[in-house]
Amino acid sequence: MTADASLPLDDYLRVLRQEIDDALAAVLPASPACPADIAEAMRYSVLAGGKRFRPILTLAAAGAVAPRSSTAKALAMPAACAIELIHTYSLIHDDLPAMDNDTLRRGRPTLHVVYGDGMAILAGDGLLAEAFALLARAPVEGSDAAIAGRKLAVIRRIADAAGSTGMVGGQAIDLRASGHVHDAGALDADALRDMHARKTGALIRASAVSGAIMAGGSPGVVAAVDDYAASLGLAFQIVDDILDVVGEGGALGKTVGKDAAAGKPTYPALFGLTRSRQLASEAVDLAVAALARAELRDSRLCDIAHWIGSRSS
Amino acid sequence: MTADASLPLDDYLRVLRQEIDDALAAVLPASPACPADIAEAMRYSVLAGGKRFRPILTLAAAGAVAPRSSTAKALAMPAACAIELIHTYSLIHDDLPAMDNDTLRRGRPTLHVVYGDGMAILAGDGLLAEAFALLARAPVEGSDAAIAGRKLAVIRRIADAAGSTGMVGGQAIDLRASGHVHDAGALDADALRDMHARKTGALIRASAVSGAIMAGGSPGVVAAVDDYAASLGLAFQIVDDILDVVGEGGALGKTVGKDAAAGKPTYPALFGLTRSRQLASEAVDLAVAALARAELRDSRLCDIAHWIGSRSS
Repeated sequence: MTADASLPLDDYLRVLRQEIDDALAAVLPASPACPADIAEAMRYSVLAGGKRFRPILTLAAAGAVAPRSSTAKALAMPAACAIELIHTYSLIHDDLPAMDNDTLRRGRPTLHVVYGDGMAILAGDGLLAEAFALLARAPVEGSDAAIAGRKLAVIRRIADAAGSTGMVGGQAIDLRASGHVHDAGALDADALRDMHARKTGALIRASAVSGAIMAGGSPGVVAAVDDYAASLGLAFQIVDDILDVVGEGGALGKTVGKDAAAGKPTYPALFGLTRSRQLASEAVDLAVAALARAELRDSRLCDIAHWIGSRSS
Repeated sequence: MTADASLPLDDYLRVLRQEIDDALAAVLPASPACPADIAEAMRYSVLAGGKRFRPILTLAAAGAVAPRSSTAKALAMPAACAIELIHTYSLIHDDLPAMDNDTLRRGRPTLHVVYGDGMAILAGDGLLAEAFALLARAPVEGSDAAIAGRKLAVIRRIADAAGSTGMVGGQAIDLRASGHVHDAGALDADALRDMHARKTGALIRASAVSGAIMAGGSPGVVAAVDDYAASLGLAFQIVDDILDVVGEGGALGKTVGKDAAAGKPTYPALFGLTRSRQLASEAVDLAVAALARAELRDSRLCDIAHWIGSRSS
């Protein structure tokens, strides 16, 4: 079964998720190339399941940009996997006692609870490095110059998203702001948006953009996909904040009410639930409008925007 | 003053060190592109000085492979800086309480002592990501296809050195072995060598190889430089272990006797000081022999091997 355009969205997502899981299992280093315990720790976190939202976005963007290409998915899959490795690394480090001190993730004890803080730091480091090794490896079409250029553009984009101007910077803002939501130094709406744009938005944008670049999208198409993903990332974050208030731990697989308990700034805390839902819906509309500008309205990217806006886990 | 071949070695190293320091200061992200505290934390560690051994090796290898090229150094400098960022990230993470719990580095309090564990983890993460962003950025000669291929090869090599088969794997072995040197599970000579080959050897090899690749070295020349650096890395580690026993804290800028106190496996602990000095000298000889095979005997790489063998800090 391939994830073609005729499938219902749920089936399309399920098929892609399986393909991504298989690809991730194949790219993770194993003993004896790396020591057994670090290999186990990396697998424990990466293969714990999860929505695979970011790599799905990469593959969907590649499919949207090059719907008739037989190689677009193969070209985009290493980037999709690399992005999921980076997402997983960030969860491992964010969960550490020195950061958010979370003990439950994807329905299982967090990595540092099982393997200790030192191994959890190392497993995260290893996943971040492995992501770039994967991105730089020989592409399916050999050493074609155009493909090499695309790969370098994708590495640059993903590294910027992961680094101190992106995810690391966002987590640094979060670290400082946590526990201070009622203080004079708490984040206002603009600062909250900036934090999320770095912490989750940057990698979501890089996910979609990487797929578009690997599939050979023109600069204009890549820019439209980037705008789409910026709005999608905002919707994703607002819904995430809402689910932290109204969701159920079982379905989410993580600690619920954690943000509020830690005094973290959230959309419901700043705007209330009703206005937060409205803001999420507006962001989905903006994402769809960006697709329309690049004539990508009739693609899976559009379905994914509506899925993100309405998800309950 | 340029670091040309006619300078005495000390002057050559000093000039290169200054060029590297200047380049590092220019490539580190600054506020407002990234939050001020994470920018400060990254600068605190990277600009604390240090021997700059690895980036010097990168530039010296580029100079050895293409002695008459006016662009070899410019092509190799981003790789040299990226490698120093990765080296610094690894020091920050290794010094954490969850790892080696060290409080003094390059003559100053370690990063987590000053900024806290969370910010230290993030600063390390940010440096690792920034290294790859730097490696992927447009090279000096534009989007030349040959240069793009070299850059991808260098990214692959450096990412592998940093990852779970390299530095991360080595630190995982070290983490497990620390405090158990007298136990049945302690590392023997082969295991100690494997740990160091991953923990310090892999990045030292990648440093030299990256310079050789960026300067356009043939596969045979790159392989000889790799062999040279493998022996050089071994010599470097043995001398490091010796200095931990006989060195002075002031000159080294770090805690002396720390390895022995932590019960860490070291060359002097396994072989004694006299035999350790002999092993270091043999490794230097092997490094020079590898250079001779590629007709690189008359290059700075040879001087650097002797410098590493005889260093006292």
